[in-house]
Amino acid sequence: MNSDSEMVIPTFEDVIEAHDRVKPHIHRTPVLTSSYFDELTGAKLFFKCENFQKAGVFKARGASNAVFGLSDEQAVKGVATHSSGNHGLSLSYAAGRRGIKATVVMPRTAPEAKKAAVRGYGATVVECEPSTSSREAVFAEVVAQSGADFVHPYNDPRVIAGQGTCSRELVEQVDKLDAVIAPIGGGGMVSGTCLTLSNIAPEIKIYAAEPKNADDACRSLKAGYIIADDAPKTIADGLLVPLKDLTWHFVSNHVSDILLATDEEIIDAMRLTWQRMKIVIEPSSAVPLATILKNRELFKGKRVGVILTGGNVDLSKLPWMRAS
Amino acid sequence: MNSDSEMVIPTFEDVIEAHDRVKPHIHRTPVLTSSYFDELTGAKLFFKCENFQKAGVFKARGASNAVFGLSDEQAVKGVATHSSGNHGLSLSYAAGRRGIKATVVMPRTAPEAKKAAVRGYGATVVECEPSTSSREAVFAEVVAQSGADFVHPYNDPRVIAGQGTCSRELVEQVDKLDAVIAPIGGGGMVSGTCLTLSNIAPEIKIYAAEPKNADDACRSLKAGYIIADDAPKTIADGLLVPLKDLTWHFVSNHVSDILLATDEEIIDAMRLTWQRMKIVIEPSSAVPLATILKNRELFKGKRVGVILTGGNVDLSKLPWMRAS
Repeated sequence: MNSDSEMVIPTFEDVIEAHDRVKPHIHRTPVLTSSYFDELTGAKLFFKCENFQKAGVFKARGASNAVFGLSDEQAVKGVATHSSGNHGLSLSYAAGRRGIKATVVMPRTAPEAKKAAVRGYGATVVECEPSTSSREAVFAEVVAQSGADFVHPYNDPRVIAGQGTCSRELVEQVDKLDAVIAPIGGGGMVSGTCLTLSNIAPEIKIYAAEPKNADDACRSLKAGYIIADDAPKTIADGLLVPLKDLTWHFVSNHVSDILLATDEEIIDAMRLTWQRMKIVIEPSSAVPLATILKNRELFKGKRVGVILTGGNVDLSKLPWMRAS
Repeated sequence: MNSDSEMVIPTFEDVIEAHDRVKPHIHRTPVLTSSYFDELTGAKLFFKCENFQKAGVFKARGASNAVFGLSDEQAVKGVATHSSGNHGLSLSYAAGRRGIKATVVMPRTAPEAKKAAVRGYGATVVECEPSTSSREAVFAEVVAQSGADFVHPYNDPRVIAGQGTCSRELVEQVDKLDAVIAPIGGGGMVSGTCLTLSNIAPEIKIYAAEPKNADDACRSLKAGYIIADDAPKTIADGLLVPLKDLTWHFVSNHVSDILLATDEEIIDAMRLTWQRMKIVIEPSSAVPLATILKNRELFKGKRVGVILTGGNVDLSKLPWMRAS
């Protein structure tokens, strides 16, 4: 829908509509607190648990908004995307829920478990070679043959409006937040957060947290234009992709700062979260806490919403085991 | 207090008093549901998340009730127990919270991490040799010298009344349960559940779930008297201890059945819970789900409360990794 169109910036009205639309299909995820982390950081942290979300990740919000917003006519033709990660899974979930076709183009080298998870929701996996040119060619063919609607992982107003429902719930669940912090990759969650908070709680500061090994958003914010990394590599593999025009619009206008954490710090924060909060979060979800632990003065005494974006990890391959 | 006294059976009044007493010191833990597990089992499961409890385990309830119920005079002398596991940790938590002394006798061979966790709450670790005779001798000396109050892990009316607060919350949180199931070792949680439910919701059936490799409670229930296993060995290492007179009283009078699961089934259920519910539970907590998966006909169409008793695991040594 958006790949060739002009930039359509979603409004807060779109978030409200999205929320009404997706409510039957997503969880209103709980907010957890931890006296241990409050003591450790000197802040009062409110963890919005999108790891408990459908498909194990916040992306079920945006994907559901895109899928359930389709006309019946378009819905018959299905949806398609390319993703070997959480967006492919979320789009498959939403399409399965509506009972329409979803096609996910994935490199043939992607883990079998990820392909199986997508198929588990009833979607079709089409394999491509692990290169951008192959992916684009295969994907173009899928769309040409099926007429499927392309749902981009983040640079899509429907997706951003859907992600904006998360911080709308958060401010309903927690009073008087001083700040909200979320991990940033392509910027879908951060953009949704900006969209919602700038409208209903503009006093809340918005921070993004990024792996130092994939710090393109941080460098973009400093430079004033989008910089894309060349093949970044980090344990937080949900955060490898660059900003695009829509997400850049929100990030550049509303984000106070982008804070960085090393992979080692991310792994430590992830493990500490599992250990003390007894919840499973994926590496990307641990980046905000890792940055808070490094920037205690910034958050001291503040009420901070921390978005735990997802919980999809390979339990047989945990990073602290690989590291040791 | 109880080791030499006659059997004092706690009443539901004791549970109410316990609840008032411990409320400031424990979490009213959330109840989570999982559409995945509901589909898999054909039942409607309500998971009471004591893995989110203080000290990571339901035992914080009973330990807090014992500690905060002490007279000021007794409190000065502190509390003591022998435990290398969750009870030692919970008693240390409660004592630290009240600001009184706690001594935990632990085998010198116990993992350093467990000793460190107890010390982390401000308690004293006294080491003994890894034998019953050494443990008893060392413990007797600790009590003789300090006058500390002995808080037994489960065969103590204060502890059972404290554990009874868990199912009191559960029936407030979930309507019209048909059954509640909890793991059984010494029987503290199950006894508290029996005490509460037999008073306020006698229509709810109570099931206990036990590792097949430590099935002494199951055999006791069938025999009509307490049978203690000789050195049982199971991955669910919180469930090794035998029933005692007080817990036998509740189990024999109120438990409908004790269901068994093999270690392999327990590990599978544990891993599946982490994977699908994104929560960290310890092996003991997975025994109920493992037995539900084996006894689907029994629970089909029923509303079942499942008590996830704790979440204290060594994250660097997960059972599915040892198994592979």
